Amino acid sequence: MKQNNVYIPNTPLDVAQEHWFSALANCGFFSSEKKETIAVDEALGRTTASPIFAIRSSPAHNVAAMDGVAVFFTDLSDASEASPISLSPERFQRVNTGNAIPEGMNAVIKNEDLHFLDDGSVQIHTPVAPWKHIRTLGEDIVATELILAEGHTIRPIDQGAMLATGVTKVEVVRRPRAAVIPTGNELIEPDKPPQPGEVIEFNSRILAGYLTTWGAQAKRLTPVSDDPIALEKTLLQAVQDNDFVVMNAGASAGSRDFTAMVLKKIGTVIIHGVAIKPGKPVVLALVGDTPVIGLPGYPISAVLTMRLFVKDMLGRLLDKKIDDFGQVEATLSRPIHSAMGVDEFVRITLGRVGNTLMATPSGKGAGAVMSMVRADALLTVPAGSEGIGAGESVPVELLRPQSEVDATLVIIGSHDNILDILANTLHKQRPIIRVSSAHVGSMGGIMAIRRGEAHIAGTHLLDEASGEYNIPFIKRLLPDVPLELIHLCYREQGLIVAPGNPKGIKALEDIAEHGLSFINRQAGSGTRLLTDKVLKDTRISATSLPGYEREEYTHMSVAAAVASGNADAGMGIKAAATALGLDFIPVAEERYDLIVPLAHKTDLKVATTLEIIRNDMALQKRILSLGGYSLRDSGEVLYQQ
Amino acid sequence: MKQNNVYIPNTPLDVAQEHWFSALANCGFFSSEKKETIAVDEALGRTTASPIFAIRSSPAHNVAAMDGVAVFFTDLSDASEASPISLSPERFQRVNTGNAIPEGMNAVIKNEDLHFLDDGSVQIHTPVAPWKHIRTLGEDIVATELILAEGHTIRPIDQGAMLATGVTKVEVVRRPRAAVIPTGNELIEPDKPPQPGEVIEFNSRILAGYLTTWGAQAKRLTPVSDDPIALEKTLLQAVQDNDFVVMNAGASAGSRDFTAMVLKKIGTVIIHGVAIKPGKPVVLALVGDTPVIGLPGYPISAVLTMRLFVKDMLGRLLDKKIDDFGQVEATLSRPIHSAMGVDEFVRITLGRVGNTLMATPSGKGAGAVMSMVRADALLTVPAGSEGIGAGESVPVELLRPQSEVDATLVIIGSHDNILDILANTLHKQRPIIRVSSAHVGSMGGIMAIRRGEAHIAGTHLLDEASGEYNIPFIKRLLPDVPLELIHLCYREQGLIVAPGNPKGIKALEDIAEHGLSFINRQAGSGTRLLTDKVLKDTRISATSLPGYEREEYTHMSVAAAVASGNADAGMGIKAAATALGLDFIPVAEERYDLIVPLAHKTDLKVATTLEIIRNDMALQKRILSLGGYSLRDSGEVLYQQ
Repeated sequence: MKQNNVYIPNTPLDVAQEHWFSALANCGFFSSEKKETIAVDEALGRTTASPIFAIRSSPAHNVAAMDGVAVFFTDLSDASEASPISLSPERFQRVNTGNAIPEGMNAVIKNEDLHFLDDGSVQIHTPVAPWKHIRTLGEDIVATELILAEGHTIRPIDQGAMLATGVTKVEVVRRPRAAVIPTGNELIEPDKPPQPGEVIEFNSRILAGYLTTWGAQAKRLTPVSDDPIALEKTLLQAVQDNDFVVMNAGASAGSRDFTAMVLKKIGTVIIHGVAIKPGKPVVLALVGDTPVIGLPGYPISAVLTMRLFVKDMLGRLLDKKIDDFGQVEATLSRPIHSAMGVDEFVRITLGRVGNTLMATPSGKGAGAVMSMVRADALLTVPAGSEGIGAGESVPVELLRPQSEVDATLVIIGSHDNILDILANTLHKQRPIIRVSSAHVGSMGGIMAIRRGEAHIAGTHLLDEASGEYNIPFIKRLLPDVPLELIHLCYREQGLIVAPGNPKGIKALEDIAEHGLSFINRQAGSGTRLLTDKVLKDTRISATSLPGYEREEYTHMSVAAAVASGNADAGMGIKAAATALGLDFIPVAEERYDLIVPLAHKTDLKVATTLEIIRNDMALQKRILSLGGYSLRDSGEVLYQQ
Repeated sequence: MKQNNVYIPNTPLDVAQEHWFSALANCGFFSSEKKETIAVDEALGRTTASPIFAIRSSPAHNVAAMDGVAVFFTDLSDASEASPISLSPERFQRVNTGNAIPEGMNAVIKNEDLHFLDDGSVQIHTPVAPWKHIRTLGEDIVATELILAEGHTIRPIDQGAMLATGVTKVEVVRRPRAAVIPTGNELIEPDKPPQPGEVIEFNSRILAGYLTTWGAQAKRLTPVSDDPIALEKTLLQAVQDNDFVVMNAGASAGSRDFTAMVLKKIGTVIIHGVAIKPGKPVVLALVGDTPVIGLPGYPISAVLTMRLFVKDMLGRLLDKKIDDFGQVEATLSRPIHSAMGVDEFVRITLGRVGNTLMATPSGKGAGAVMSMVRADALLTVPAGSEGIGAGESVPVELLRPQSEVDATLVIIGSHDNILDILANTLHKQRPIIRVSSAHVGSMGGIMAIRRGEAHIAGTHLLDEASGEYNIPFIKRLLPDVPLELIHLCYREQGLIVAPGNPKGIKALEDIAEHGLSFINRQAGSGTRLLTDKVLKDTRISATSLPGYEREEYTHMSVAAAVASGNADAGMGIKAAATALGLDFIPVAEERYDLIVPLAHKTDLKVATTLEIIRNDMALQKRILSLGGYSLRDSGEVLYQQ
């Protein structure tokens, strides 16, 4: 019997960070000389590495502060309205603002107070104080005075101040050089469609992008194949050329994961394996004095471990806070379960609904890039906790500015493709309004309204007894919430099947009868209710429908399962079938409405949304082009309570 | 009689802005097509100009989510601890995380749950749910789904999401092209020392820097001389090549200011002259449909008018908030007088002292670049107001993040060169601690402590009666403030004279006797008290000392006046003379102390400062190298109340 996997020690996060940062400190990483001298013209946004002192005074001479004439102030001491004094041309000099004051002259009379006479002299009616309307040498700054302290981020006005005082070169903190090395035989460039077994190499772009944003000069290297010799060669060169190196993938315990092995050979592994989720198989090593960070292969694991081990490393090196939007307290909308013994990082979307900032997990799965695109914050469930209950207040680390979060419209409930288009229209017209939409089914939307988590819920629940949509459910489940039910669209639901319908499916019973595979929606979704109603009407038992137990959360996921051949059919809206070029067998036209609590109706975000639904012709045209929709009653208030 | 100046209409600011922005809207500036398609790899930080939809699903195939073996889940339905199932090699396939799942297989068993047998088969002890440990096609995102809304600023994770779904090119908002044209015969490049009449051309760098920061592609053109024909030619070409053009100087009414004249000839002048201070002579014009903004020549006027007329223009074009740190309420530390009829913009430094955010003007003068370098905020004194009283609460527009302002140590009082070095040491060691120091003389510092404006005041006031420094003044003026008086340094005061002392000055009486010129310090400064004491001791009347009435606020300004020949001598510290290579005639050694209210002593910023003063050897060495200082008692507490 062979045991394939290597044991990866599970170091607690705080211990791992302590070891890593003291190893970095001990090898001199933070204290190494990282300065360079560059032209002030190129220094915008860079950080001063030494104090900057004026080389020359500014102004460099006495200069006129107004357009007028320069004079000797003593010539005018007896001037008055009654007996003005005339100065002959050798006792004054015309000056424009900024002109040098001739040697010995010591005041400027502005044009408005002058009368030029035909003999070339000028008449002045009042005395003048010495140095009036003159900017004296060094008035702004005197040579040797401090212009900018060390550690200052250079702004345009700072460039001006330096150049004004003769400073044309400036010592700045050098951006640390970093190499990002993708590894893996399966990697292909993003411009080709991946064949089975191929993976698009996009992680290195994400990682290099963050490093750049954080202040490094990051360079992506050509992907290295899963070959320890090639890996060692590339690594040794990268270590020589850079201040630190990030490797992606190859850090876990798969049969082709050589990163730790190679690092052990050519350097010192400080940490291999940290008790975090995601991100466990991270390797932190030193090759000579150069830090090498082996990140896990999943994009989310890689990003999170880079935040944990590289962000603060750079922050300490560059002496600044990086990518720090602060922490806020938020109320968890649903329970989170977490394994004991690991610090778990949960991607969170936030929404301010009324006075409460609600936190909702934006998706699991370390491969789910979109869950990170959508995330507003990160929540840490500590190693000592088995989870956090719904309604608890939790601190979350913001990934966006709070102001953006506060301007987010929260739509929770049934999924419809219209929501994406609506989100885009809103984002475009009023850029501060973002849309966060969670697809938890119609019933989930109603519950979200009940718990005060959402501004709007989308729902299409058919009450079998009355044949009425939505209203019976609202009366039963939201009796105490003043609200309006606003109609969004009618839409065709039906069976989504492969192009050309090769299995000849006409109805649900065909799937049961011919042992084909179905892909279902989750319990509580309107589409699931429709499926169950059809099964009941046709007296098919759920257990006889192969795949009934497999649940997806959106129409598009159902369509994708059919498109990929993972399932032969699923129930969904026509727009989803159309989007992926699939065939569609209509089953019912249903009503999809929006529940809007009156408490949020006047919220600018909600009001804008309703106005757009009712009046934006471009949006309506766009929706109709998706296929399967009717907007004949869109925007009508169907019910109030 | 000739009248040289041209009348510049004084349009109120709100009217000017309204005219300008409607002219821009009418000529289609905001609605013009400003998109470009670029590689996703190059798109970090750019703004999407259209919604981005997934081209392919991600994952593109069913892939393993764990390292292990892919199986047919139905093979294992009867597996149990008691009767494990062995799969022959054709019924399983080894997979690493990310590998494609072979056609038809539909579950992955992870390595930890496998036992490989010597005959090549694998033994499994439990059944498996279908699709377990498989990331199904489209699990993250399905082709055609929305990845990013229009108007979204692209982050590294967004680049990853696009590349993962086959999007390699992206339509982004094109950065508007801008030319900055410096004008004036007097302009020289910053690398040469300016001769009288020459002015260093740094404004265009400041302006292009801000435009870049605000999202434009700004290009500085070669300075154009004051020649209407050259100006017209350059302008016509710039208008053709750019989305907008910024001209600097030539906009006021001096004899060589041709900007408005040329713009009237080749385009339409919308506004010439706005009732603001500084910045009045701004010209806003259209040449064809291209906006041309003629900014005043003073750097501060140019920056302020660009904020008023160009920042929002770009913000509206790019559909985003630019350089916006928000507004805060602050308490004015001293009265501001302002002319009726103009909106006056006052540069402000802010400091949080105790619970109060104090606002202090950072300097006047449209040429004072350093006042803008130091400024934390801008205060608008509206056209209808003659000024604002001390102690009033005023809204100010932040120029830095609030967090930086809150981390600012406020030192007000007598000026000493040590304060610059101290500021740099603090900024370097604890980057969040900035120092804002206002030089208002010793008496001003004591008053600042009384009004609660400063964390620390520097003072060197000699009480003639007792011969004691500072303490008598504290007892008299701050009887109710619990505080410590902490000694900073002894320093030599004396007469600063030209190198080699060409006028043979030995004492103040020489200046009075030989009719030489003196440069004085302001009333209330310790140095002024010293000067007055010397005059009294030597029975010289102030009126017989030529220049006694001319006041500077810092030792360095006094030294600069002597260095430039504007004065023959002034009273000041030796360090100032040494800095500018001047001669120094000692008059007295004096004591320079810091007043620290007990209320602020435990404030981290103050505590850090005191610790550094007492223990930072590098700082002490640096201070001693300035000349004229003794640190023999530095850091001692001299008095407590």
